[in-house]
Amino acid sequence: MAPQNVGILAMEIYFPPTCIKQDTLEDFDGVSKGKYTIGLGQDCMAFCSEVEDVISMGLTAVTSLFEKYEIDPKQIGRLEVGSETVIDKSKSIKTFLMDIFEDCGNTDIEGVDSTNACYGGTAALFNCVNWVESNSWDGRYGLVVCTDSAVYAEGPARPTGGAAAIAMLIGPDAPIAFESKFRASHMSHVYDFYKPDLASEYPVVDGKLSQTCYLMALESCYKGYCQKYEKLEGKQFSIADAEYFVFHSPYNKLVQKSFARLVFSDVARNASSVDESAKEKLGQFTSLTGDESYQNRDLEKASQQVAKPHYDKKVQPGTLINKQVGNMYTASIYAAFASLIHNKNSSLDGNRVMMFSYGSGLSATMFSLHLSEGKGAFSLSNIAKVMNVDEKLKRRIELPPLEFVELMKVMEHRYGGKDFVTSKDTSLLAPGTYYLTEVDSKYRRFYAKKTTQLANGH
Amino acid sequence: MAPQNVGILAMEIYFPPTCIKQDTLEDFDGVSKGKYTIGLGQDCMAFCSEVEDVISMGLTAVTSLFEKYEIDPKQIGRLEVGSETVIDKSKSIKTFLMDIFEDCGNTDIEGVDSTNACYGGTAALFNCVNWVESNSWDGRYGLVVCTDSAVYAEGPARPTGGAAAIAMLIGPDAPIAFESKFRASHMSHVYDFYKPDLASEYPVVDGKLSQTCYLMALESCYKGYCQKYEKLEGKQFSIADAEYFVFHSPYNKLVQKSFARLVFSDVARNASSVDESAKEKLGQFTSLTGDESYQNRDLEKASQQVAKPHYDKKVQPGTLINKQVGNMYTASIYAAFASLIHNKNSSLDGNRVMMFSYGSGLSATMFSLHLSEGKGAFSLSNIAKVMNVDEKLKRRIELPPLEFVELMKVMEHRYGGKDFVTSKDTSLLAPGTYYLTEVDSKYRRFYAKKTTQLANGH
Repeated sequence: MAPQNVGILAMEIYFPPTCIKQDTLEDFDGVSKGKYTIGLGQDCMAFCSEVEDVISMGLTAVTSLFEKYEIDPKQIGRLEVGSETVIDKSKSIKTFLMDIFEDCGNTDIEGVDSTNACYGGTAALFNCVNWVESNSWDGRYGLVVCTDSAVYAEGPARPTGGAAAIAMLIGPDAPIAFESKFRASHMSHVYDFYKPDLASEYPVVDGKLSQTCYLMALESCYKGYCQKYEKLEGKQFSIADAEYFVFHSPYNKLVQKSFARLVFSDVARNASSVDESAKEKLGQFTSLTGDESYQNRDLEKASQQVAKPHYDKKVQPGTLINKQVGNMYTASIYAAFASLIHNKNSSLDGNRVMMFSYGSGLSATMFSLHLSEGKGAFSLSNIAKVMNVDEKLKRRIELPPLEFVELMKVMEHRYGGKDFVTSKDTSLLAPGTYYLTEVDSKYRRFYAKKTTQLANGH
Repeated sequence: MAPQNVGILAMEIYFPPTCIKQDTLEDFDGVSKGKYTIGLGQDCMAFCSEVEDVISMGLTAVTSLFEKYEIDPKQIGRLEVGSETVIDKSKSIKTFLMDIFEDCGNTDIEGVDSTNACYGGTAALFNCVNWVESNSWDGRYGLVVCTDSAVYAEGPARPTGGAAAIAMLIGPDAPIAFESKFRASHMSHVYDFYKPDLASEYPVVDGKLSQTCYLMALESCYKGYCQKYEKLEGKQFSIADAEYFVFHSPYNKLVQKSFARLVFSDVARNASSVDESAKEKLGQFTSLTGDESYQNRDLEKASQQVAKPHYDKKVQPGTLINKQVGNMYTASIYAAFASLIHNKNSSLDGNRVMMFSYGSGLSATMFSLHLSEGKGAFSLSNIAKVMNVDEKLKRRIELPPLEFVELMKVMEHRYGGKDFVTSKDTSLLAPGTYYLTEVDSKYRRFYAKKTTQLANGH
């Protein structure tokens, strides 16, 4: 029989313990109070210290998932990585992660890295789900890893950084199942955010263009989703048809704007679920052309106001980690989803969650998940317990801005570099965390794992 | 009903008209006669001039496929690119190709870029096939593009370059169908060939290690394939069970060694199809350990001798383009497969073709295809006709070595650069070929298409 309810069986999230408060950064940068905390809607930002990178974070997330859900590496038949943090232009991050599997002799694992800005994780996830549903599935689990370190040059984009890795186990009979028939994509050739300066870790960003591209892609995907839903289900779709909405979150303010845009879109489509008050407040804007509507401040304000109670209910529960950790690129939307699981766990049973994934350049998809509590290790309540988000957030160390800025300088120098050893200082890392020890004269990278028994030393 | 016989419906190959003869290069480099032509087994090498790159080649291959098979861009529901030639570290090559689709309003096209050295095209192909077999398939075609420019620093690896783009249309009822249940992969963390120097287009290569990794991965995949075949079919597999063998081809000599290794592997497994003469000549080597066997020159010589008649029949028909164009990285194995279609076209009806895909780092898979003549546009004979390989090879222009070396210097300077215009010299390009015109101050790239009516000028 064909596998049913294919989706996410288990999740683990890792983010560095090192972070900086956005209000502290506001003071340090000498910008107006609230520019980052209210303007961007961000509370805190995590970053890799010089002993962590996307490979070490990926190793940590995968081994932690295996340990906590008691998965044998032999049970994995496919491993895919989504990332836009390039350490090597040819050798995939997936091959670095093979270290975990080779010890037990399992080298028969399909999948490589998927690349397009923040969208690569979603591409990897779709690929893994499709594999389980395809003729080539061999009955083993799929594993998706989203790992990124988002860093920016000094300037207005710097506070929109962040870092994390998320591992997701894929298989049938999942508590988090894909509603594959409804999803809609929008792909287009634009230069809103890209990384053409190969020697630099920093992107070239046109912030205003990127925000407009994001909102236009959102609208296009939402329209496509609604059309497919209506065609297949024979009834209209509106935001009333899903309990939760999860967005790729470069910064929380854009998530607020995005959800408000969907509310306006329902009004513009004259969806039956829209109430009179919303029609009254937003109806006047429906005559704007698409382009005008993305720039209109009055519409933005009015739609956010109308959206507010819905936002608090349907969106806010999926914003915690992103506000606390920052933009995690490919991991961002799944960190938002992890926030929702953390906050609502077993109460999500029977719910539909809408997901909007965006990667500059651009690639975007809106898709939906059907949640059920599940059983044992593969249940929403156990996933929430394993991820242990509160504890991970509490355990963090805030570093002073000067230390952060100096670290960024060290990392600029080291990016693409060779022939150096790191401090190997693991004092801030939790036991079980992987860390970078050395990059040799041939650019080969070496990692170690902080032992769980502290008495063992390094 | 679930889609049957999912696979490749149509193919197009593009390689630059600019090339250099390997024997001319031998003279120029002052190496011993035959070092490249016999030692590597290569005849000629294609390369991008300063108006071509992996994006322009991809645009050319896709538009040519659409035109020649009369495919409307609206019929495409998924587009995936395999490449290891990084022009941007975040923005996928797929988004550049979206230009072709946006004109007709089709932006709902899933898929991004798959990355791991020369293996990315195979990953993209598997992803596309799985999509057609998955619940998320919407009935449209998938499209896979493998596009790469292989260039090396001056030295022994330089003659192993090449350049090409291949486009493949994916769907059900294909003349080239996947036997998905048998495939076996070998993935491992090694540094045989990688690109850690981000500012340089050239890889770091350990030639000897890479060759051993390739052969070890081949052996591991072949063993895995045989095991799965035997488990599912209830009978032994040996090279007698497939009409043709197609290999990723960095240079032809490695393909010769690879096939000989499979012949030796059949002897070592004591396969029933192995004749007495082969057992006699190779049996003495079966006591070698794995490591010893990869280094043993007597074994290499003896197995190539035993393999020779089988090689001529089962492998040689799939080597033409690779010997003439060089290593095309992700496109290499599909160029080898295209050579087979070109040489054998409709006579392949009913045949099994074994495929071995390898990407350093490393990722490798052995899989098999079941071929049938098919009908109309989607038939082996039409694919051979459309690809028109003889004509494309004939049309090429050999450049003198000095011009090639000087071009490499220009390209080294331009790699990762901005703010320049190209010569826009399209005199060597066939009508319908895309070319690079400019990279502006924001690194944005601009392309044009050489018009088919020559009277129109540029």
